Amino acid sequence: MLILGIAGGTGSGKTTFAKALQSALGDSCVIVPQDAYYVANTELSFEDRLKVNYDHPDAFEDGLLIAHLRALRSGRSVEVPVYDFANYVRTSRTVTVEPRTIVIVEGILVLHNPLLRAEFDLKVFVDTDPDVRIMRRLIRDVQQRGRTLESVRTQYLETVKPMHEAFVEPSKKYADLIVPEGGRNQVALETVAAVLRQYLSDGKNRLTAAARE
Amino acid sequence: MLILGIAGGTGSGKTTFAKALQSALGDSCVIVPQDAYYVANTELSFEDRLKVNYDHPDAFEDGLLIAHLRALRSGRSVEVPVYDFANYVRTSRTVTVEPRTIVIVEGILVLHNPLLRAEFDLKVFVDTDPDVRIMRRLIRDVQQRGRTLESVRTQYLETVKPMHEAFVEPSKKYADLIVPEGGRNQVALETVAAVLRQYLSDGKNRLTAAARE
Repeated sequence: MLILGIAGGTGSGKTTFAKALQSALGDSCVIVPQDAYYVANTELSFEDRLKVNYDHPDAFEDGLLIAHLRALRSGRSVEVPVYDFANYVRTSRTVTVEPRTIVIVEGILVLHNPLLRAEFDLKVFVDTDPDVRIMRRLIRDVQQRGRTLESVRTQYLETVKPMHEAFVEPSKKYADLIVPEGGRNQVALETVAAVLRQYLSDGKNRLTAAARE
Repeated sequence: MLILGIAGGTGSGKTTFAKALQSALGDSCVIVPQDAYYVANTELSFEDRLKVNYDHPDAFEDGLLIAHLRALRSGRSVEVPVYDFANYVRTSRTVTVEPRTIVIVEGILVLHNPLLRAEFDLKVFVDTDPDVRIMRRLIRDVQQRGRTLESVRTQYLETVKPMHEAFVEPSKKYADLIVPEGGRNQVALETVAAVLRQYLSDGKNRLTAAARE
C-alpha cells in the first residue's frame, strides 16, 4: 500500500487534485478526507461548537486518522466518521472504507503533525496564490453553502487566514513535491499518477525506500 | 522525445537532480547545460568580459539553445559550445550531442524566457532556502575554484542575489512541479523518474497533451 498526503490552503485545488488522481487510477485508489476527522464535540452545545476554531490543528482528531491509516495498511477496513458540517458535530454514522493499493489523505493540515506525516509515502503540497484561493472559496461558500459575502470575509480574516499563515503555509516545508495550481495542473497530475501507476504495476515501493530523513 | 527544463538558484541542487535523473534513466537521457550557452563574447577584451553580469538573462544565447532543442527534436545531432569559465569566453570547440528520448536542460534561467519555456514538456523548479544555497556555493567556490571568501561574498551580494530575486525566483511561477531541496529529495526524484520511465516504455507523451495554457 502507498499512502499519499495532499495538503494545501482553502481553495488551493487539493481536493480537485486528489479526485483527478483517483479517477486516473480507478478502483485501486480511495480518498480519506481529513475533515471527516474533526473532533466529535458531541458533548458541546451548538453555541459552544460555533466558537471552535476549525482551522486550528486542535480541531482535528489526528490520533483516530493515524489509527485508521495503520489499520488500512495492515489490511483491515475502517469506519470513517461522517461529520455534520451544518451543525459542527460528528454524527453517529460512519462509512466503511476497505484497504486499497493507493490511499490518498487530503486536507489543509495533513502535513502539520509529525506523527501523521510519518504515515505518508509521498507528501504533496498544493500551492496556489492566496487571492486565487479566496475567490474560489468566496464563490463556493456563497453559491453552494448559502453564506453571505460579509460572513465569508469575517471568517476568512479572523480565523482562516491567520491559521493558514501559522500552520498550513509552514507545513509546505515538509512536502516532497509542491504542485502549483492544484487540480488545474495536468502536467503535475500526470507525473504523480505515473509513480502511482508504476507501483500498481510492479508493487515496488520506491518512495518509502527513498524517503528523506 | 521529451524535453525537461530544470531551473533553480545557484546551489539549489538542480544539477545534482538532473544528474540523478540521468543515472536513473541511463543512455536514453542526455543533459544540456544552459551555461554552455553563455554569449560567446569573443570580440570583447578580458577586462570587458569581467564586467559582464553573468547572472542576467542577457548573458545567455537563448536563441542558439532553442535552435538546438528544435534540431534534436527533429532527430538531428547538434554541436553544443564548450565555454571557458576561467576566461569568460566561448571556445572554438564543441561537443556533439545526439538526439535521445529524454533531453534535460538545466540552468538558473531556463524558465525565464517564454520562447525557451515553450520547448519544455515538463518544467521543474528546484527550490532550496537561500542560506542553504549560499553555503553550498561558498564551499564549492572556495574549495574547488580557488576563490576567496571575500570575493564570493562580494559577487553574491552585487549580482547573484539581486539577479536571483529579479529573474530566477519569479520564474518559479511557470514550473509544473516545485522540488524542495533538489538532488537530496529522493522521493521527488523517483516521482519524476516514473513519468519519464513510463514514456520510455510506451512512447506516449501524456505531458504535452496535458500542458497548461
